[in-house]
Order: sequence, then structure tokens, then C-alpha cells
Amino acid sequence: MTFKTSTAEGPVNFFNVYDLEKMAQSVIPKGAFGYIASGAGDTFTLYENIRAFNHKLIVPQVLRNVENPETNTEIYGDKISSPIIMAPVAAHKLANVQGEVASAKGVGEFNTIYTISSYSTTDLPEVTKALNGAPEWFQFYFSKDDGINRNIMDRVKEQGIKAIVLTADATVGGNRETDARNGYVFPVGMPIVEEYLPQGAGQTMDFVYKSAKQKLSPRDVEFIAEYSGLPVYVKGPQCKEDVDIALSAGASGIWVTNHGGRQLDGGPAAFDSLQEVAEAVDKRVPIVFDSGVRRGQHVFKALASGADLVAIGRPVIYGLALGGSVGVRQVFEKLNDELKMVMQLAGTQTIEDVKNFKLRHNPYDAPLPPEAAPLKLY
Amino acid sequence: MTFKTSTAEGPVNFFNVYDLEKMAQSVIPKGAFGYIASGAGDTFTLYENIRAFNHKLIVPQVLRNVENPETNTEIYGDKISSPIIMAPVAAHKLANVQGEVASAKGVGEFNTIYTISSYSTTDLPEVTKALNGAPEWFQFYFSKDDGINRNIMDRVKEQGIKAIVLTADATVGGNRETDARNGYVFPVGMPIVEEYLPQGAGQTMDFVYKSAKQKLSPRDVEFIAEYSGLPVYVKGPQCKEDVDIALSAGASGIWVTNHGGRQLDGGPAAFDSLQEVAEAVDKRVPIVFDSGVRRGQHVFKALASGADLVAIGRPVIYGLALGGSVGVRQVFEKLNDELKMVMQLAGTQTIEDVKNFKLRHNPYDAPLPPEAAPLKLY
Amino acid sequence: MTFKTSTAEGPVNFFNVYDLEKMAQSVIPKGAFGYIASGAGDTFTLYENIRAFNHKLIVPQVLRNVENPETNTEIYGDKISSPIIMAPVAAHKLANVQGEVASAKGVGEFNTIYTISSYSTTDLPEVTKALNGAPEWFQFYFSKDDGINRNIMDRVKEQGIKAIVLTADATVGGNRETDARNGYVFPVGMPIVEEYLPQGAGQTMDFVYKSAKQKLSPRDVEFIAEYSGLPVYVKGPQCKEDVDIALSAGASGIWVTNHGGRQLDGGPAAFDSLQEVAEAVDKRVPIVFDSGVRRGQHVFKALASGADLVAIGRPVIYGLALGGSVGVRQVFEKLNDELKMVMQLAGTQTIEDVKNFKLRHNPYDAPLPPEAAPLKLY
Amino acid sequence: MTFKTSTAEGPVNFFNVYDLEKMAQSVIPKGAFGYIASGAGDTFTLYENIRAFNHKLIVPQVLRNVENPETNTEIYGDKISSPIIMAPVAAHKLANVQGEVASAKGVGEFNTIYTISSYSTTDLPEVTKALNGAPEWFQFYFSKDDGINRNIMDRVKEQGIKAIVLTADATVGGNRETDARNGYVFPVGMPIVEEYLPQGAGQTMDFVYKSAKQKLSPRDVEFIAEYSGLPVYVKGPQCKEDVDIALSAGASGIWVTNHGGRQLDGGPAAFDSLQEVAEAVDKRVPIVFDSGVRRGQHVFKALASGADLVAIGRPVIYGLALGGSVGVRQVFEKLNDELKMVMQLAGTQTIEDVKNFKLRHNPYDAPLPPEAAPLKLY
Repeated sequence: MTFKTSTAEGPVNFFNVYDLEKMAQSVIPKGAFGYIASGAGDTFTLYENIRAFNHKLIVPQVLRNVENPETNTEIYGDKISSPIIMAPVAAHKLANVQGEVASAKGVGEFNTIYTISSYSTTDLPEVTKALNGAPEWFQFYFSKDDGINRNIMDRVKEQGIKAIVLTADATVGGNRETDARNGYVFPVGMPIVEEYLPQGAGQTMDFVYKSAKQKLSPRDVEFIAEYSGLPVYVKGPQCKEDVDIALSAGASGIWVTNHGGRQLDGGPAAFDSLQEVAEAVDKRVPIVFDSGVRRGQHVFKALASGADLVAIGRPVIYGLALGGSVGVRQVFEKLNDELKMVMQLAGTQTIEDVKNFKLRHNPYDAPLPPEAAPLKLY
Repeated sequence: MTFKTSTAEGPVNFFNVYDLEKMAQSVIPKGAFGYIASGAGDTFTLYENIRAFNHKLIVPQVLRNVENPETNTEIYGDKISSPIIMAPVAAHKLANVQGEVASAKGVGEFNTIYTISSYSTTDLPEVTKALNGAPEWFQFYFSKDDGINRNIMDRVKEQGIKAIVLTADATVGGNRETDARNGYVFPVGMPIVEEYLPQGAGQTMDFVYKSAKQKLSPRDVEFIAEYSGLPVYVKGPQCKEDVDIALSAGASGIWVTNHGGRQLDGGPAAFDSLQEVAEAVDKRVPIVFDSGVRRGQHVFKALASGADLVAIGRPVIYGLALGGSVGVRQVFEKLNDELKMVMQLAGTQTIEDVKNFKLRHNPYDAPLPPEAAPLKLY
Repeated sequence: MTFKTSTAEGPVNFFNVYDLEKMAQSVIPKGAFGYIASGAGDTFTLYENIRAFNHKLIVPQVLRNVENPETNTEIYGDKISSPIIMAPVAAHKLANVQGEVASAKGVGEFNTIYTISSYSTTDLPEVTKALNGAPEWFQFYFSKDDGINRNIMDRVKEQGIKAIVLTADATVGGNRETDARNGYVFPVGMPIVEEYLPQGAGQTMDFVYKSAKQKLSPRDVEFIAEYSGLPVYVKGPQCKEDVDIALSAGASGIWVTNHGGRQLDGGPAAFDSLQEVAEAVDKRVPIVFDSGVRRGQHVFKALASGADLVAIGRPVIYGLALGGSVGVRQVFEKLNDELKMVMQLAGTQTIEDVKNFKLRHNPYDAPLPPEAAPLKLY
Repeated sequence: MTFKTSTAEGPVNFFNVYDLEKMAQSVIPKGAFGYIASGAGDTFTLYENIRAFNHKLIVPQVLRNVENPETNTEIYGDKISSPIIMAPVAAHKLANVQGEVASAKGVGEFNTIYTISSYSTTDLPEVTKALNGAPEWFQFYFSKDDGINRNIMDRVKEQGIKAIVLTADATVGGNRETDARNGYVFPVGMPIVEEYLPQGAGQTMDFVYKSAKQKLSPRDVEFIAEYSGLPVYVKGPQCKEDVDIALSAGASGIWVTNHGGRQLDGGPAAFDSLQEVAEAVDKRVPIVFDSGVRRGQHVFKALASGADLVAIGRPVIYGLALGGSVGVRQVFEKLNDELKMVMQLAGTQTIEDVKNFKLRHNPYDAPLPPEAAPLKLY
């Protein structure tokens, strides 16, 4: 199979990350773009992820003596320039022939955390190298075979990776009808998991997900923590019960997400789950948040609702498609600049101030931003 | 009157059951399609039935040790492959010349309950035969004449039918303006009730409904239970008072429905009534739910809100129109596959787990799914 | 000024009263149609009047032993065929050259109450005659001159009119921008008030309203009650305070309305005010309701929220335009038939049963019915 | 740079202030119009400002003995014809070559307060002269250099200006994407602040905002109050904490605003913040309100929610563009006429009555008025 996609590298002209989605549609092949952009089922959860940010409102604070707010923060000893980090996203080579190498280079230059996906289309060493010292986490799609899992963890540790993120919300693929309508199959292989998924290229997403382990349990968290000795983030808890299970099993962090609305449609916006999770965690471990983040104000609201870090996925992939490593860096810079502007207007000098900021509950519905209107994907 | 409709038999290519509605519109004659697809009055209740499912949200549960969830269940001793059953729908020959025989064949192959309508366009023995052993229930539009009612029940028992469903929410026809605009009359007769409705073909729905008994009372439930010796499900209760009346009269089950939004517009979504009914029933008898079910997640939410079985109507009729018995089976399989996927992602292994699942209240409005947008019907 | 409008008389083919509005637009001149159909300001209140009916929902009641529900009712000794009565509407000759004579004839044949407007384009005796014995009420736009008011009341009593309705919510005209955009002036004179408004034809609505008395007070209610000896309905209260003021001043009835959304935009739907008013009235006097009624279910909901009578305006005027007296009667019959159907499905045999029916609160927004979508009026 | 814009002077034909926006778009150059009309980010807050007015509803009051309501009021000894005043708006010469001189003339003729912006395109003496005795306030964009601030205040006092309004909600520019898309730069200089912003013309809004002081604190309020001896209004508080800070620092008034939705998107409608602010202020100092006011009913609702004065911005600028000083006066007259009509229908004779009026909470969403639908700005 010959797959042709963008080869771009260089600055992108855009005004917000919604722009990127529309622009990227013309440089990424249709099936691949549908895979990236679409959500599950009726797309309620996909769009609710964005609408939900206005369920809480930022009441500006004035006369707070703020100037040039600082976004740098620290997580388990790693100093980064911003709480905005790279979410694990499969198959960057769908968007740009440079793949994860360009993404990692852009993330490294911005100096934040890069979470490499198990379904990366680039192998671990190249990504680590491209990051050039920026902190790297590994997202784990767990194999049914513990021997393979050990081999993968051995390789992960070899790279000096700082944490493992166990994806627990995707034990099967969500109802991705856009992919079905487009007859989409992965056009590129996934070297990290080739031991349990040798035939990645040419397969449907369903096949890929089913090759990993369905029957995840707390024991898997314990096993990863024990074998790797690394902090384990459990990706998926959206309620107190799941937090309790994950922390009891030895998780060192909770990652609140609904997989960008790609898994279970008819579930809540991830942002609407964040506060309950934060109350359950009660600052015992760090919280990472993703799903629906398109604006600096979304980052602000997630931090003010209990997140320590905020991960972004699709926007980065669009930046990658349009500008390679430079486009990736620009996406982080744009959202971070928006965050700084919001921090200034909200009267918050530091990320700590943002975390202590009290948002106001909005009892009324919020419309989808006009720029986030659905694209035609099939 | 010569009525020509679909003669299809064989596999249908579709991605969700909304697709079927659009596709079926081109193979079912306009008046008949309007009769099937439309709702009453302003169609508030018709669409609220679908919107309402997102008034409660499924918070995924992770690390629950789930794999290959099982949908089989049991009702009064009948083992079926899924809690999804066939709702009583009048006049299948509107959609396919094969009529109820093909529907029953598809349902039998899927192995679930088939509820035959009094206004079936096929007589009882043929349907029973086509079911090939799958459990059959009989939906009763009660005659004004108890002698006729006894005769019908005698025939029902002769077939080995397992339960009688007394429709109590349709003592007159709803305000079906689409039918009025299309000048719709039933083009096919209804053999089961020909004793009290000999002239079924050529009549309006209003006429048909008025031929049955308006003045239903608890005494009718008692009479059916006593005379037939079969479990009686009362179809229509949406509040505690009605549950109390039905159970006091000897009902063996409660069927929560608003008749697919076809009867009383300006009433609640059936799903919004389910929890109150379930609390009133308090597990004393089984609860069947229908109205608005278009997704596996809808089935999940109904079960988690108190239903034991979930009935579907229009989607099956569209499957019948497009693929005969095979299309019917595909509709059940599609929704059951969606249900399994939701069960996996929600961390539930069995139907019992689903029934014990706690949904999260959503205080915000939910938009109508884009794919459920109204079709032009007249 | 020569004003040409519909001369229709005879049956109209329609399926609901929304149809009539669209059809009437083609037979009533633009300015006059705009005057009739439009609302004040941003039209929030105009459309909220309709949306609000789904803020409360009718949960059907089954097995209630109901057949052929009866809509007849009685008010201060007058027996009428339905709780649906004729609201006071100005200038019927805008819609049909036959004017109020045809309206009164249709209302009389249906046998309900006709409320004649002060701004009627037909004089009192002709209307009384056309009613042919059906009860007549007089809506009073009060003059600044009490001598004139006495003269009008003398004439009203002479006709055997049964009650006086004092309009208190229109001491100036609302912000009718459609009229301003259309440069609308009344093309026909108003004989009942010609003593204080001799030049009615050729004037704007603003001029007309300002010719009446602005400074209404409880003293005016007392004066009308004392001088006329007739029951006085105060038209306008939407809160407890106004009920207290009106009843203390001797009102014999409360008329809950927001003038069909034509007066104060940014106020509540009249239906949303009804329950508070009913609780304040506490059955001491009858309550009439209008504003937004387009369906039998709206009538049902108003009665179940405390109204004794429900008045309709615009739909009747459209029926008048399209079918003269026959069209008027058809409008009442259509809504009454819808009401009967709702009563049957709701398990209510009589209007008293409806008044005792408990509606269910709907916490979610309800969309505007598609058929009620705004027309282009200028 | 040659900048050409409207030169209009004379009466404008319009029916409401939404009309003006659409009409003004054709006489103001695209970039300048985008600067004036647009909001920040996703424009949630921009439009929520308008929607929010229907979160509270005016229940009409009848029989209140009201006639010809009076809108005159008084603030710190200044008698004005209406509580509607002129908000500080930058750069009137964008809309009309006459600039602030025409605005001030129109405002003076209407006799209300004119708040001159620091970023005025006309110098102080000319504006004061054009006001012809009407009260003038000065909006202060504070310099980083206190010497410059003293010089500006010296000039302000020289003009007999009555109060200083410290803008605290705009220490950096909001996310004005329309300006970025249009490549907008200010085409006209700003003489009042030329000491710290000599190169105003040719610069972006971002540059302009960053030239002023970011690090505002309570000390700045104290400094202005002490140095100028004038009442200081702090513009920006939307919560109790900010009120406490401002009043502790010596503010003589609180100005509730979100800068017309131009600064922090994702924050509340200013109207939704007003009641909390009013409760915190508890009548200790006057409250001015702006943001989203397009109707007399909006003015009424703001006054009934705690405001003493209500400022308008964009509508005046559109009036200026279309009719110079006459257009400006017409805008004030139109909104004041609407206010009077609402006062009459709400049963309130005086502004004091309006302030004591109790609005009704609306728990349901309110749609954006159709006439306020977004224009295409880039």
C-alpha cells in the first residue's frame, strides 16, 4: 500500500486551532483525516467535550498586580515551560511523512512532555532522540501476553522514559462510523507493538484494538508499576470509584479523558468529570486532563478544576500536517499564548494561582463555538 | 386496491439504524412510510424520545476485568440471546410483501422475543411457525366485544404464545397529521382482528383505533389474566399511579412506552419516565421499555434505568423493508453489537451488571443527533 | 383609503392551526397581516409563549375508564360547549370584509363565549345579533373620559353582555417594529370607541393606544364594577401582587395573558405565569388564559395549570380570513377535537378531571415546534 | 496612511439599534468595522451578553397608576435626562470623520454623561466644548509612568471633568481574532495618551494595550483618587472580591462590564454578574453597567438588578457613523423611548421605581434575538 500524505515543514499561518482542522483537511488523505477528526457514534460526547468548558465560567479578577504571567510548571521533578503537554496519539505518519520525529522535535523545542503512543508509527529511539532532552512518557496499549509487555517496558526504560500511561478507556475501539463509511484501514505499521501486532498496516482500528488486552484489571497497574519501577498514570477514570481502584492499585497519577470523544458516545464531557475526579484524588497524585481542549481558556478552566497538566492531541496533529515540527511548536505556543492572556485578564500570575482560581458555575447551556462546527468527514 | 412495496430479501449495507430510515424511505411507498416514521402533533415527544437518552450519561468504568460481555438474559423462564426484543408494530406488509413472516424469521434466528401486533397483516399461525421456537408474545388491541376477545385469546393460547401485552396508551389514535396530509389509509387487512375489524384495508388509522375498545379499565386486565392464564403486560404506564393500578389489577409486567411518540404529543420522553416507573415497580415484575431506541447505548441506559427488556420497532421495519428476514436479523445484531461495545467500555460483563450500573444525571440539554434529523414525510 | 382583504366564506382545508397562519398570509394584505401575526421587540416573549407549554408535560394515564370525553363547561351560569373561548381581538375587518359578524356567527354556532374588542370594526348590536344567543363579553379599552366610559357601558349593558374585561396590560402599545417597518396604519374605523377615537382609520396603533387611558388604577376596576353591575375580569395580572390588587378592587375574574407577546418583550411566557396566578387566586374567582395557544394539548395544559377558560385569538382571525364564519367555527372545532383526543389519552373524562390533572415539570428546554417557525412579515 | 470613513451628519431611519449595526457595516471600512463589532475568542461572552438579559424576566405590573414615566436621574449631584450614558469607546474617528466632537454634541443635546476614552481620537478640550455643559467623565488607560499619569490628570481636571473611570479589565488586549484576520491597525492617532503612545496610528490593538500599564493594583486606585480629588470608578469588577478590593482602595463607584465581550471569552455575561456585584456594593457607591445593552428592556433589567446608570457603546458608534451628532442623539432617544414604554408596561413611574422592581428568574435558556445574529466580519 502506498500512502501519500503531507510533507510540510515550516511556519503555518493560523489564528486559532480550529483553523488548523479546516486547513489540515486539505493536506491529509480523506480516510486518515476522518480517523483523526471523527468521534464515536452520534458525536454527542465529541462536541460536548467542547461545549462543556462553558459550563464553568472565568470571572475576571482585577487590580491583582499581575504582569507577564508565567506558565512554567514542574511534575515529579521535571521542569517544563507550560502545563500543556502532548497527548498520546497514534500514527503521526498519517498527517506528515515525518511522523513522530517532527512532533517530538516541535515538542522538545517548546519544552514540554511528549507522550508517545504504543501505536506510534515511529520507534522509540528516534522519538527520544528528536525530543532532545524534553521529558518523555510512554502510553501503553497492553498486550495480552505479559512477556511482550515486559519486553516493551524493557525498551521503554532503556530510553529513559519518565512515566507509563496505561490506557484503560479503550479496551475495544469505539463506534467510529466515519472509519467504517470510509473503509479506513491503517496504512502504516506500528513498530513499538509489532511483537503483538505484526500486521498493523492494512488493518482496521477495530482489529488493532482487539489485538491488545481487553480484560484490564487493577492487577495490570500493579504489574506495570512493579516491573517498570516508573510512575504509572491510569488513563480513563472519570468518577470517584475509578480513582479509588487506580490509586489502590498503585497508580502515581490519574489521566482524565474520554479519549477525545472517540470511545463511548453518550458519556459525559471529560471536563464535566474533572471536578469529581479531583475531589476524589484530593491532591494525592497529579492529574492530567485531555479531551476537547482547543483554547487557552480551556487549559485555564481545566487547571482551575483540578488538573495539573493538560494534554492536547488533534490540534498538534493538524499542526504537524501543516508545518511539520514548526507547526507542532506553533500549536503549543499559540495555546500557551492564549493561556497567558487569560491568566493576565483573570488576575493570575502563576500556574499555582490558576489552580487556586474559583470558576463560576453556569446553569445555562452553552452553544458550540461557531468555528468548531462539524466538518464533512465521509 | 393494489399496494406495491419492497420485496427485498438479503443483506443490507448500513452503519447505524438511522441510515436505514433514510434508505427505507426510497423503497416504501410514501403514505406507508409516513405512517411508520411520523409522530403525533408537533413531534416534540417523537424527538424528545431520542434526545432524552442523553439526559443520563454513561460514565465509563475502567479496570473492571471485562472481556466479551454477554447479552443473554432470561424472562419468566425464556432464555434469549439479548434483552433487545421485537416491539409490536402493525402491518409489516407495508414495508415488505413478506410481512410478519420475514420479521418473525429474522427475530427467531436472532433468538429473542417477538411481540405480534393485533394489527398484524399476517395471521397468528404463520408467524408462530416462522419464529421457529423463539418466544412469542401477543399485543392486544382489545375489542369492545368480550366474546371476540375470548375468541382471540383462545387462538393466542393455541399458538403457545407466552404472554399478552395489553396496549393501554392508544384508546384513540394520536394526532397523526402526516397521515392526514398524505390521505393515508391502510392498504392491507388485519386478519387477527377481522372479527371486529373486517374492513381493515382501506380505512384510516383513526377508524382502526376507534373500532377497538376506548373505555379500558383495570377490569380488562383482570379479565385477560383470568381468561388466558398468561402473564399480562400493561403497555402504557409512565407514572407511579399507573403502575399501582396495573399491578393491583394483576399485571405480570409493565411496558413503559409512549408509543414511539405517535400518541400524545406534549408528553415526556418515555426514557424520562422510566426511572419513576422502575422505582414504583420495585422489581416486583419485569419492565419492558420502548420508544426512541436507536443505539446500543440507548439499550444500555434503559437497562441501567430499570428496564429488563428493551423493545425496538421502526428500525426493524426498516430492516425488513431493505433486507427481509436478513435485514431484520441484522438490525438486532447491529444494536446488540453496539450494546456489547458499550458494555465493554462501561466495565460491565453481564446484563445484570448493566442493570446495576449507575448513570450520571445531565442537567444540560442534549441536541438531537445529526443523523436523527427529521425527514420530509409529506 | 380603500382597503381590500379576503371575502372568503366556506370550509377551509387545514390540518392544524399553524397551517392557517401560513395560508392566511396570502389572503390578508401585508401590513394588516404583519399587525396580526407579529409580536413586540425581539419576539422572545412571542415565541416563548409557545415553547413554554412544554415546560410542563402531560404524563398519559391509562386504564381510566374514559370514553368520548366531554368538553362542556359552565361559567357564572353560562353553559358553553368548550372551555375554549374567543379572545378580544381588534379589527376583524383586516382579515375578512365580513369582520366581527362572521366571527360572532362562527363562535355562536360553536356555542362558546365571544369577547368583543373595544377596537372592533363592527358595532355592538350587529355582533350580539350574529352571536345568536351565545354569551358575549366586552373587552374595555378605557377612555380618559369617564363620561364616555359610562356611555360605552350603557351600550354594553343594553346588549345583554355578560361581563366586562378590562385590559390592563396595554396602557401603551408594545414595541411593534413590524408595523413600523410596514408603515402600518389601521385602514378601518372602530365604531364602539368613536366617541374618544373618531379618527381610528388612518392612524397608527401607537396613536390608538394613546387615545385610551394610560393611568389605570384599582379605582377604575371599582368604577366599572359599580357602574355596570357586571362581573369584571382584569386582563393582565401575571403575579400574586397583581391578583391581590385586582381582587381587592372587586374583580370577578382574572385573565392571564401577555397580550400574545405583543406588548412587553422580555417578559415571561403567559403559561409560565399561570400557576403562580392560580395559587394566588386560589379558586376565589375564575381564571381565563390566553397567549400562545395553538394546540388542544396547550388548552389541556392551561386548564391543568389553573385556568377555567382558554381564549384564542390569532388562529380564529386566520380562520376568519380563510373561511369566514365557517372557518371560525372550524378553528374552534379543530382545537376542541384535539383537546378531546388529549383528554382521552390522558385518562380524563371531563373538564373537571382535566383541572385536577397533575402535569410533570420539564427541567429541559423545549424547541419551538417546526411548524411554528417565524414567517417573514416585512 | 489615508483613512476614509463616513462623513454623515443628519437623521437616520432605523427601527432598533440592531438595524444600525447592519447599516453601519456599509459605511465603515471593513477593518475598522471588525474592530468595533467583534468580540474575543469564540464570541461566547459577546453573545451571552445579549442572551443573558432573558435570564431574568419582567413580569408586567398592572393598575399601577402610571402615565408618562420619567427617566431623569441624578448622580453625585449631576442631573441627567436618562440613566443611559455614553460608555468610553476608543477612536470614534473610525466611524465618522467628525469623531468624538459629533458624539459629544449628540450626547450633550440628549443631556447625559459622556465618558471620554483615553484612546479618543480627539483631544480633551474639543470634546468638552462639544458637550456644551453636559457632564463629562474620563476613562483612564493608565500609563506605566506616573509622571505621565499626573500630566493626564492635570489636563482632565482643567476641563472640569467630573469623574475618572479606571479600566481594570483590559491590562492586555483580548483575543481579537477578527482584527488579526483583517490585519487591522489603528489608522488614527490618540492625542490624549500621546505622551506614552506617540505612535498610536499604524499600530495593532495589542501594541496599544501593552503600552499602558499591566500591573494594576489597588495602589493605582488610591493614587488616582488622591492626586485628582475626583470620584474614581473602577471598571471591571464582576464579583464580590473585586468590589471589596476596589472599595477598600477608595473607589467612588463600580462599573460592571466585560468590555462588551472584547476581552476574556469564556467569562460570564456582564448582566449575569450584576446582581452579585450589587449585593456586595450594597448601595455604598453607584454602579454603572455596560455590555450587551441593545434594548430599553435591557436598561430596565440592569437597573432592576442593581445598576444606577447603564452605558452604551457600539450602538452609539453606529449612530455616529450613520448620522453624526444627530445619529448619536437618535440612538439615546430610541433606547430611552423603549425604556419609557417598558416602564409604563411594567407599572413603574420613575427610575427609583425601576430600581425597586423585582425581576423573575428564568431557568430556561433564551435564544439570541434573530436580529442580533452574527455578521460576517472578515
